[in-house]
Amino acid sequence: MESPAKSVRDLGEREIIKIIIEKLGLIHDMPIPFGDDVAAISLNDNRLIIVKADMLVGRTDVPPGMSFRQAARKAIVMSVSDFAAKGVKPLAALVSLGLPSNLTEREVEEIGLGLNDGAKEYGVLIIGGDTNEASDLVIDCIVIGLCEEKKVVKRSGAKPGDILAVTGYFGKTSAGLKILLEGLSPPENVGKPLVESVLLPKARLKEGLILADLGALTASIDSSDGLAWSLHELSDASKVGFIIRSLPIAPEAMLFAEEYNLDPISLSLYGGEEYELVVTVKPEMFEKAKSALKNIGAQLMEIGEVVGERRICVEIDGKRAILERKGWEHFKSTQLSHP
Amino acid sequence: MESPAKSVRDLGEREIIKIIIEKLGLIHDMPIPFGDDVAAISLNDNRLIIVKADMLVGRTDVPPGMSFRQAARKAIVMSVSDFAAKGVKPLAALVSLGLPSNLTEREVEEIGLGLNDGAKEYGVLIIGGDTNEASDLVIDCIVIGLCEEKKVVKRSGAKPGDILAVTGYFGKTSAGLKILLEGLSPPENVGKPLVESVLLPKARLKEGLILADLGALTASIDSSDGLAWSLHELSDASKVGFIIRSLPIAPEAMLFAEEYNLDPISLSLYGGEEYELVVTVKPEMFEKAKSALKNIGAQLMEIGEVVGERRICVEIDGKRAILERKGWEHFKSTQLSHP
Repeated sequence: MESPAKSVRDLGEREIIKIIIEKLGLIHDMPIPFGDDVAAISLNDNRLIIVKADMLVGRTDVPPGMSFRQAARKAIVMSVSDFAAKGVKPLAALVSLGLPSNLTEREVEEIGLGLNDGAKEYGVLIIGGDTNEASDLVIDCIVIGLCEEKKVVKRSGAKPGDILAVTGYFGKTSAGLKILLEGLSPPENVGKPLVESVLLPKARLKEGLILADLGALTASIDSSDGLAWSLHELSDASKVGFIIRSLPIAPEAMLFAEEYNLDPISLSLYGGEEYELVVTVKPEMFEKAKSALKNIGAQLMEIGEVVGERRICVEIDGKRAILERKGWEHFKSTQLSHP
Repeated sequence: MESPAKSVRDLGEREIIKIIIEKLGLIHDMPIPFGDDVAAISLNDNRLIIVKADMLVGRTDVPPGMSFRQAARKAIVMSVSDFAAKGVKPLAALVSLGLPSNLTEREVEEIGLGLNDGAKEYGVLIIGGDTNEASDLVIDCIVIGLCEEKKVVKRSGAKPGDILAVTGYFGKTSAGLKILLEGLSPPENVGKPLVESVLLPKARLKEGLILADLGALTASIDSSDGLAWSLHELSDASKVGFIIRSLPIAPEAMLFAEEYNLDPISLSLYGGEEYELVVTVKPEMFEKAKSALKNIGAQLMEIGEVVGERRICVEIDGKRAILERKGWEHFKSTQLSHP
């Protein structure tokens, strides 16, 4: 008996990408391999054109409580964050829109304002786009930049002995998303920063540019699919493993976890839409990198180290565990549903 | 009394773009003005990075009878056609996908095959993309190229006295779309090429590259929104008018019009998704340009001339009329509806 045909929901994003790439045939000698945070075209003068497309879809990427203006801004942040991870300055953007036909003029204006918010915040010039009718709100933001080939930080350069570090605390977006989706009401001092982390995410662009300029990084990725997921991606691309000895959990996420009897470690590892950078740093450059970020009011926090054995081990408070992938994957995750 | 809030459907694509651009603030000194077929970023060495995003949405761009493979191929053709109009060779593409969750594995494969068809056909390397869940099928195809700044053919260079020309016959896609949408059954020798023009559109890339290389063109656009619409866009951008003295209507469209008692001139002027180039040619270079295209089995057909007075006049068979805009505009056009 034939097994029933699999649908997109059964397959999950990784499998879908695999199926499509197989049909595209082999691609040789790409300056940045397929599947890294950004794609590149060589200019043959040691420079690369860097491009990234990231599509925001209303039903999966816009939680209840997020305005059109915030959604449009977030679409820019999503693509800029990938540039941050690679240490490349974004220059310009195209925006392809799919708009439901019942959207009002005021809502269209809000989308324009939100795109402008994001573009101004990260110094990106919007140079074109496309407008269409669609059932969902769709904002596909395509960012373009230029950089020296040797400066791009890929996912694949981590080496045993490198320091594993991140640019911020984790757990806020998974807590914030829970508040919005389940209509929870934690105390305001806890709830406000958590909800804000979802509605007004920030890309770590300044951090990424400084770290790449210093030449301090061996590999880098953003944590938009969750910290655990990002670590697995780095591990696969670099063919290394990690030992994690501390997890920077946001204090607000800790308080939230306590209030609702949740595991703060899960909140911080298996969130998503959290745009911190997850990087591996040359040990001899770590202090320099850390103080360079401190000088701009940012931070670089050591969470562990790169090891040769290809598994990801968490060793915290005397407990040891192997870190599983999981994390946010489109099609297989719980859908955001507006109440 | 306040008038009721306008929705996206009332506004139409042009108005929506205007509202959004207003919110983005002023953009100075763009190498190619906002609203041309492609956008550009200067490399400051007389070269431009050229980019174009064109979004295919199932419910508006995929008529009944079009397979997933054909739809994916068409998404590539749509963007490549804009490169053809500007005389720029496309190098690489990103593809952002929105996929309905009930799509089968086989349909995902078909999309991969169709993207590969289009990419191979026009020599484009697919270097990345993004995959999401969406209610409609969404294929946003972003094409990237490089060119010398002085070689790009804008919409704005037409001058009185230039020859107005096109690269092929018109009317096939509007007839073909009518067959698919209304389930008509014209004789096969008439129906087959008409339906094929819709299901397997071709971008005039070789033609556009040769014409630009010769330096023969003063302005250019593709006819993806219909011939009348394209002429109005050229007229607005170049601040000129046109006199049209002949309309190259496809013989199959003529036969179809006769069979179903339709006006063949309307079919040819107000179609859409017809990827011919509409160009203005320096008079002294017209014969050279025409024979260069003839040499590759293509054609360049004179249809009229550029005039100083800003209106578009059709003078055919002793009749004279002013050509109105209209043509295909998303949101305001009749929706494609699958029976």
